[in-house]
Amino acid sequence: MKRLGLFLFVSIMFSVVHAQYKSPVINPDNSVTFHVYAPNAEEVKLKGSFAEPSILKIKTKAGTFGKDKTYSLKKEGDWWSYITKPLTSEMYTYKFVIDDEDCLDSLNINKIRDVDAFFNYFIIDGVPGSMYKTQDVAHGKLEKVWYPSNLNGMKQRRLYIYLPAEYDRNSGKRYPVLYLLHGSGGDETSWSDYGKACEIMDNMIAQGKAEPMIVVMPNGIVNLDAAPGESPYMDAKPTSNNVSSMMGKVEKVFVDEVVTFIDQQYRTQNDKAHRALAGLSLGGLQTIYISANHPEVFDYVGLFSAQTTNTLDNDVISRVKNVFNKVANIKSLFGKDSDPNGIEGIDTYKDFDIKLKAQFDAKPKLYYIAVGEEDFVKKLNDDFRLKLDAAGYKYEYNETDGSHSWENWRKYLLDFLPRIFK
Amino acid sequence: MKRLGLFLFVSIMFSVVHAQYKSPVINPDNSVTFHVYAPNAEEVKLKGSFAEPSILKIKTKAGTFGKDKTYSLKKEGDWWSYITKPLTSEMYTYKFVIDDEDCLDSLNINKIRDVDAFFNYFIIDGVPGSMYKTQDVAHGKLEKVWYPSNLNGMKQRRLYIYLPAEYDRNSGKRYPVLYLLHGSGGDETSWSDYGKACEIMDNMIAQGKAEPMIVVMPNGIVNLDAAPGESPYMDAKPTSNNVSSMMGKVEKVFVDEVVTFIDQQYRTQNDKAHRALAGLSLGGLQTIYISANHPEVFDYVGLFSAQTTNTLDNDVISRVKNVFNKVANIKSLFGKDSDPNGIEGIDTYKDFDIKLKAQFDAKPKLYYIAVGEEDFVKKLNDDFRLKLDAAGYKYEYNETDGSHSWENWRKYLLDFLPRIFK
Repeated sequence: MKRLGLFLFVSIMFSVVHAQYKSPVINPDNSVTFHVYAPNAEEVKLKGSFAEPSILKIKTKAGTFGKDKTYSLKKEGDWWSYITKPLTSEMYTYKFVIDDEDCLDSLNINKIRDVDAFFNYFIIDGVPGSMYKTQDVAHGKLEKVWYPSNLNGMKQRRLYIYLPAEYDRNSGKRYPVLYLLHGSGGDETSWSDYGKACEIMDNMIAQGKAEPMIVVMPNGIVNLDAAPGESPYMDAKPTSNNVSSMMGKVEKVFVDEVVTFIDQQYRTQNDKAHRALAGLSLGGLQTIYISANHPEVFDYVGLFSAQTTNTLDNDVISRVKNVFNKVANIKSLFGKDSDPNGIEGIDTYKDFDIKLKAQFDAKPKLYYIAVGEEDFVKKLNDDFRLKLDAAGYKYEYNETDGSHSWENWRKYLLDFLPRIFK
Repeated sequence: MKRLGLFLFVSIMFSVVHAQYKSPVINPDNSVTFHVYAPNAEEVKLKGSFAEPSILKIKTKAGTFGKDKTYSLKKEGDWWSYITKPLTSEMYTYKFVIDDEDCLDSLNINKIRDVDAFFNYFIIDGVPGSMYKTQDVAHGKLEKVWYPSNLNGMKQRRLYIYLPAEYDRNSGKRYPVLYLLHGSGGDETSWSDYGKACEIMDNMIAQGKAEPMIVVMPNGIVNLDAAPGESPYMDAKPTSNNVSSMMGKVEKVFVDEVVTFIDQQYRTQNDKAHRALAGLSLGGLQTIYISANHPEVFDYVGLFSAQTTNTLDNDVISRVKNVFNKVANIKSLFGKDSDPNGIEGIDTYKDFDIKLKAQFDAKPKLYYIAVGEEDFVKKLNDDFRLKLDAAGYKYEYNETDGSHSWENWRKYLLDFLPRIFK
């Protein structure tokens, strides 16, 4: 037992020595202090999704969306530090750059994956930040489920489902369903991890701002059936360039596979009035086409920084085929997507104007568009709205600061939820 | 549309250029090639959980358990590489060390957290490796759930539940339950992430080697209610030194809180014959005391590299109190554990010999002990077995190669599953 006492004591003393710095520290004025141990580094920088108020408007160029602002740290002894100006309430991501090498903050346990890279994050309390934290409210549960699929020769695909806290207590009650789609580079984990969808749902329901609902978060990438590590195809990597996922295949099978599965397995209200579909970026593109091809299925439609690509209509399809023919010899790029020429989903994009008319003739309760004023898809969204305006189709529009970022997508979800199933 | 064609083409070409190397590459003879881009580095090493057959027996010292073997990479141009000798089937973890700085393999998307650090991993097919991969079999689902708890002043705590594939198809059927506990430094995510418990269950059930069962994976750390990012206490960090979790608190409330919740919420077979409890390391310690305090609850008990600490009996308790009194002034180390003096759970450890006798008098169907021959808890397990032998208590014993590692814990689960609920 002497040994146990010594072990406890040494353990505790060890922790004390290493606890001399924390990082990040959120100061009372909401400035944030970062510390990093790098005795031999020549230069340490910080790349963060936050911009200090004085320099809030960072112009992003198409293709460099989400580029983080960089700050230089100051050396004191073996440690480097940086203090931001006071930050507004938000969930922010960051990394250190030590002598040009990206490094995570080893003092911050909160890390998150985006596409194929990890970031640290922290949350500044207030609105909206506190909505992204686990609060002392009733918690729903998250289920990680496989469902049968014929997409791309995979027999089963993965989706995540949020069930509201009351779901298990009310075994006779049926619930409306929000289908929430991720972007290119994302997967079924994106909305619950980076998007904090479960925390948002718990908090919004607890505050009476959202109806208790089921939220379904499928994997919308053709050549990935599940997030890394959970797919049988362990080499298949997320990438921001999911060309094969822009060919209509996901859209084509969505209602038959995903909606049918959910209606069979869960206590859903299985009619149009109780189904919403929303997606960000690529998921926004998918939302447009899935909902237009199925005017009878969704009463609420949400486009968050959508790749509206309203240029994608009939005359485009032959050009897409051309591009694919050119690259047919580099199949392996597409992971399990053994048939990059297989654009059998492309019909989903055909005759879009006719389909859109049918969708609006069927009078959806909400067609919602949100985009940041500096988003690289802003122009595409402007064009898309002109098209809707010209046809006299009603929609709600939310234009915000900022660009193509999770800061915006989480806010759009907060804004969208009170508008559905009312 | 010209723009879309160009975008697709550039995207694809970009991928081709960067695809010149993959890492890791599993060669036909199961040697593994690593590549890392580090043009300016002076030295690049690889730390891996694998040992080549010729040097398989690495001695670990108490306290340095799980220490990885280090290999030097060779430079060619801007890239460094290393080829291992052929490896046996397994899931292996590794990291690069570039000029003394730990770095993940940016070419390998498969990453996993252990305590507060991330590692890359890869799987060599065969036995047991293929058991850790998603196969083309029926998949169960994983639920991330909050349950009510009075432990440490937190109102709700997190647990993960695996439900077998047939659970939703057989709404009239009830299932046996395996409670699976993690080690110090772990949390409710450990068994499903690092332990590949869902893949193991799916594959073992599909092969008829395990009964369809519910697997419950709670968080057994007193001052953490949930894994990082999902707890309201965002500063609370996993650590290997969970002193406050060795004071009997978790053991004391386990049956009342966790088992009761599971029996209420799921279709369990809620009797002793259909409950198993197993844990690794700290979870093994908890398994010993939970099962000994409740001889009527679990018929199957599994100790995987357990911290058996059979030295911990009545005369020890006052010494533990002393240690805690000494460090009472550094409360903040314990995160939300506002009362490090609060050893109200310590009674769970009292009168262990009497409790153990009652447990074996009640004839458990299985008392299973597994440990690696080079594990730092091997001696403790030897002593514990001597105690069982002396009393004539029957147990099954599985001594393996290796030390205190997930390689062993996954294998112990594979070995344990066919022995329960038969």
